[in-house]
Amino acid sequence: MGILDRINSSEDIKQLKDYKLVPLCKEIREFLIDNLSKTGGHLASNLGTVELSVALHRVYDSSKDRIVFDVGHQSYTHKIITGRKEKFPTLRQYGGLSGYPKPNESDDDAFIAGHASNSVSVAVGMAKARTISGEDYDVVALLGDGALTGGLAYEGLAYAGASGEPMVIILNDNNMSIDTNVGGIAKLLQKMRVRQGYISFKRWYKAVFTKLPRLYAFNHRIKEWLKWHILPGNMFSSMGLYYLGPVDGHDVKELEHVLRWARDRREPVLVHVLTKKGKGCDFAEERPECYHGVGPFDPVTGELPPEKDSFSEKFGEYLCEFAEKNDRICAITAAMASGTGLDAFAKKFPDRFIDTGIAEGHSTAMAAGLAKQGMLPVFAVYSSFEQRGFDMLIHDISLLNLHVVLGIDRAGIVGGDGETHNGVFDVSYLSSVPGLTLLCPSNFNELHDMLESALFEINGPVAIRYPRGGEGRYKESRKEQESIIKEGSDVTLACYGTMVNEMLSAAEKLEKLGISAEIVKISAVKPENYPLCINSVRKTGRLVVSEEVCESGCVGERILTLAALSGVALNKVKLLNLGEGIVAHGDRALLMREKGIDAEAVAKAASELCRQ
Amino acid sequence: MGILDRINSSEDIKQLKDYKLVPLCKEIREFLIDNLSKTGGHLASNLGTVELSVALHRVYDSSKDRIVFDVGHQSYTHKIITGRKEKFPTLRQYGGLSGYPKPNESDDDAFIAGHASNSVSVAVGMAKARTISGEDYDVVALLGDGALTGGLAYEGLAYAGASGEPMVIILNDNNMSIDTNVGGIAKLLQKMRVRQGYISFKRWYKAVFTKLPRLYAFNHRIKEWLKWHILPGNMFSSMGLYYLGPVDGHDVKELEHVLRWARDRREPVLVHVLTKKGKGCDFAEERPECYHGVGPFDPVTGELPPEKDSFSEKFGEYLCEFAEKNDRICAITAAMASGTGLDAFAKKFPDRFIDTGIAEGHSTAMAAGLAKQGMLPVFAVYSSFEQRGFDMLIHDISLLNLHVVLGIDRAGIVGGDGETHNGVFDVSYLSSVPGLTLLCPSNFNELHDMLESALFEINGPVAIRYPRGGEGRYKESRKEQESIIKEGSDVTLACYGTMVNEMLSAAEKLEKLGISAEIVKISAVKPENYPLCINSVRKTGRLVVSEEVCESGCVGERILTLAALSGVALNKVKLLNLGEGIVAHGDRALLMREKGIDAEAVAKAASELCRQ
Repeated sequence: MGILDRINSSEDIKQLKDYKLVPLCKEIREFLIDNLSKTGGHLASNLGTVELSVALHRVYDSSKDRIVFDVGHQSYTHKIITGRKEKFPTLRQYGGLSGYPKPNESDDDAFIAGHASNSVSVAVGMAKARTISGEDYDVVALLGDGALTGGLAYEGLAYAGASGEPMVIILNDNNMSIDTNVGGIAKLLQKMRVRQGYISFKRWYKAVFTKLPRLYAFNHRIKEWLKWHILPGNMFSSMGLYYLGPVDGHDVKELEHVLRWARDRREPVLVHVLTKKGKGCDFAEERPECYHGVGPFDPVTGELPPEKDSFSEKFGEYLCEFAEKNDRICAITAAMASGTGLDAFAKKFPDRFIDTGIAEGHSTAMAAGLAKQGMLPVFAVYSSFEQRGFDMLIHDISLLNLHVVLGIDRAGIVGGDGETHNGVFDVSYLSSVPGLTLLCPSNFNELHDMLESALFEINGPVAIRYPRGGEGRYKESRKEQESIIKEGSDVTLACYGTMVNEMLSAAEKLEKLGISAEIVKISAVKPENYPLCINSVRKTGRLVVSEEVCESGCVGERILTLAALSGVALNKVKLLNLGEGIVAHGDRALLMREKGIDAEAVAKAASELCRQ
Repeated sequence: MGILDRINSSEDIKQLKDYKLVPLCKEIREFLIDNLSKTGGHLASNLGTVELSVALHRVYDSSKDRIVFDVGHQSYTHKIITGRKEKFPTLRQYGGLSGYPKPNESDDDAFIAGHASNSVSVAVGMAKARTISGEDYDVVALLGDGALTGGLAYEGLAYAGASGEPMVIILNDNNMSIDTNVGGIAKLLQKMRVRQGYISFKRWYKAVFTKLPRLYAFNHRIKEWLKWHILPGNMFSSMGLYYLGPVDGHDVKELEHVLRWARDRREPVLVHVLTKKGKGCDFAEERPECYHGVGPFDPVTGELPPEKDSFSEKFGEYLCEFAEKNDRICAITAAMASGTGLDAFAKKFPDRFIDTGIAEGHSTAMAAGLAKQGMLPVFAVYSSFEQRGFDMLIHDISLLNLHVVLGIDRAGIVGGDGETHNGVFDVSYLSSVPGLTLLCPSNFNELHDMLESALFEINGPVAIRYPRGGEGRYKESRKEQESIIKEGSDVTLACYGTMVNEMLSAAEKLEKLGISAEIVKISAVKPENYPLCINSVRKTGRLVVSEEVCESGCVGERILTLAALSGVALNKVKLLNLGEGIVAHGDRALLMREKGIDAEAVAKAASELCRQ
């Protein structure tokens, strides 16, 4: 029986003899590789934070103390330790273990995580709540070096530093966010990492003093004094945070020691921890970017199944094609070059490729500046992440009607990542941006043609919205704003994007029931003006709209509004959508069924209307 | 004839003899005080940036070089210099001069401004565009110390530092944003300002060398060396920016000299300029916070007309009342304590008052942390500024259904500030936040009662939305989600918030025409469920909705959707709203008439429907 078999709570970790910690970490790594090779998940980042997670549980009690993860896909070891080991075979599956911290999954998860850079803000709020209410618990925020490029992290750090609230912020610095880190902050960390003087001093110091524990504690003051003279003030100190580091993130005892020290200072402390993504697994260490979020793989060789064609990849490919012909085109990513398919562009046109780090607000405003001076910027970004750029879309791009093209990737239900990552608010928030054109391709051909018209035909801001994954059965490209995909007389099925595939299947099901459905596919969701659809509804008198977005601000609402304003009195209607928009993790097809927006649900709704 | 009379362009400034610069600045100050005493406007900030603006125009050509303002209410001197002097009597009035830079007003305005912290992002985009396209012009970004607390500024600075793009960032440090600056950044600037050693050295240096211009130029290298030894590396240097400063922002020759120096370095340079808000005007210098954005005042004594009761002030007053009884209530502002009426709370409950600086994202996420640990946070924020917190509303507050109360101030048309400040997207973006309750008080009594139920009765996130200014004729408080304010049989007039006043007037006008209007007032716009309104429409068969928001996602759309889904076939409908949502500056009543959403327009729409 291994050490890990006996670990079911934070308490069990605290009881362990020191010498068992290193073998425990080894067991956890084996557990992770073994499980993730079957279920998929975030491999490299979790392998990099095994020791850090174990050390955290040596020092803190996560049932009482608040450990706030950032992004949160590095929380697997924390989940293993806090009684969720047995659930790993269900990881990221519908009804199974989430790949992110979830307070409704366990009280040991202090907060939700998913988007980057929020942890310090949330944690300082918790620390302040504790102080105001006179309670007694500790607060820890984790923050990756990638997330540090986000302005939200800076706002949080600045407030934490000024507040004086006792709390510990752990900067998990693996010198690589999802894509290679960029920007002034990365350069700053680089400088801090390589202060060899400090690191060699620390090695010597440790070698001498660890054999004498009491003296080690006593000598903190000397250590501090030396730190301040070898490692002069940095940005964090400027902000009022007590800086400790850099610390070897794979030395579990050193980590435990430093965390205790940080906790006991009773002020805001930043602990700078150096970790290695993929640590302890050859193939993941060598190519951590390939083992960030993965599907099942071979646990020995690391071999991954071949990738299927995706909208993201095609977007990058088509953009390169157009950039070849037009040298005003430049591409922007917020730390997601591979996720958004822009890696090909980055290689081909390095001078016109911009990676801002995790900084969607800046990317959006910078695109505005580029466009104002005559460039043709294309910002590819995940739908849910661009929620951070909402204000800049309106203020910086739209008010001047600047020609910026947005590739809104991961629109709709995303699958395993779940509720924080679903792109289900974009139709609503993008439609409210003045003058924006919103295009929804239903397949790769349409993506190609829409990108072409977004770049060369349409003025002002244009967003193209496409889902995670690939295309379905419908492969034609329609150039019109709306098209009748199938004529019919009993009921109008309205849709946009890849939902057309569900509509085609629904129409076939209805055909068998003797119901003649007309399918209207909308290509441009905005401008909100759908004459073909209104004509169809005028004819059939019945309407079903199915959408992979939240109800508020959905296209169905607009069709009904246009119908009423056009004098079409409609009362046989079903709007299928995701309601408030919270959809858990799991298989996309399964979730579409569950939420009642798939072909089956459309056919059922339409046949009910036809019986009225 | 004064010097200012002969200044009509940037070129005229460049031709001036040095000795005329100081008297010119004096004349500009007199011009500002004289004009603003009649029109109102941003007094203190413009008095503080006279020399800086003159110096900028000595060094740059704003018709070609790109000067990007941040916030932009300090651009008056720039406007005076660039041929818009004669338009000052129309400042902030409908059809008149805007109080902010506007490229459609003048080519000398490089970009739009209004929201804080975006200038560096926009400017580095412009600089990058210049470099990619091989053009030749200079780029300058202005940034206030207040705006520096915004994460967007940090994202921009980090990118600018890393990019190496030749550009100049001017940090206009007046040690006071709209309210007193807070946070780690303010502390950092504090430290940088008081390095007396550097400042005294500079005085001596200048005294010696200004008489020998060539030697002065030659000695830059010595000066730099000294700067780096007296003023050690700071946050900006860490980010890869070449730091110059602090510079006396009221010494126009010194500024011109330093700006030239900065421009000629051909790398990203940050120039730290110290200015004084209200400079040269006793009453504005003494109480700059009172002369930030003002109406007409006495130019000699500074006497301001007494303030009228406003929703903001009442919000603060009521919150104090409830906080007296419940010690879990805490109040958050993002640098707008007086604007949002929270200054009373700040004085009464300093331990429970949080000012984050200009950091809406952080404020929103921090509120989530406070709520998760049992506090009852209330974040009062301007509608258009909370667009920056949109993602955090969904991700941090809503997904955990946390009980946070938002005071959404300046909802609807704001008047003189214009398009960047109008709160016309909030009904759309707040309605899409899962589980949020959206309340719209139509008067102070309702504000009181809604705040009470938001705090003590409703669960999850709650937003209360209210306009700039005060209440109208309707003063009753209705506790129901919807109420029939006036019964009628011919047409339903649906509304929320203060629009009820327009509806009452419209109903009176209609009465005279023999049309019986029923007024339905919606108190809770979300949950989107209006049975009384649907019943009314079922009865009258006609509907007019008037709203001070953009069309996409407006309440009218939802009423029509609910009607269709409830089987009410409606085709006599008029939705009055602000269309795409771009509304210029000017008097609110005038703009409501212009946009066709006032009592007159409602009566006209209703009578047209009744003739159908």
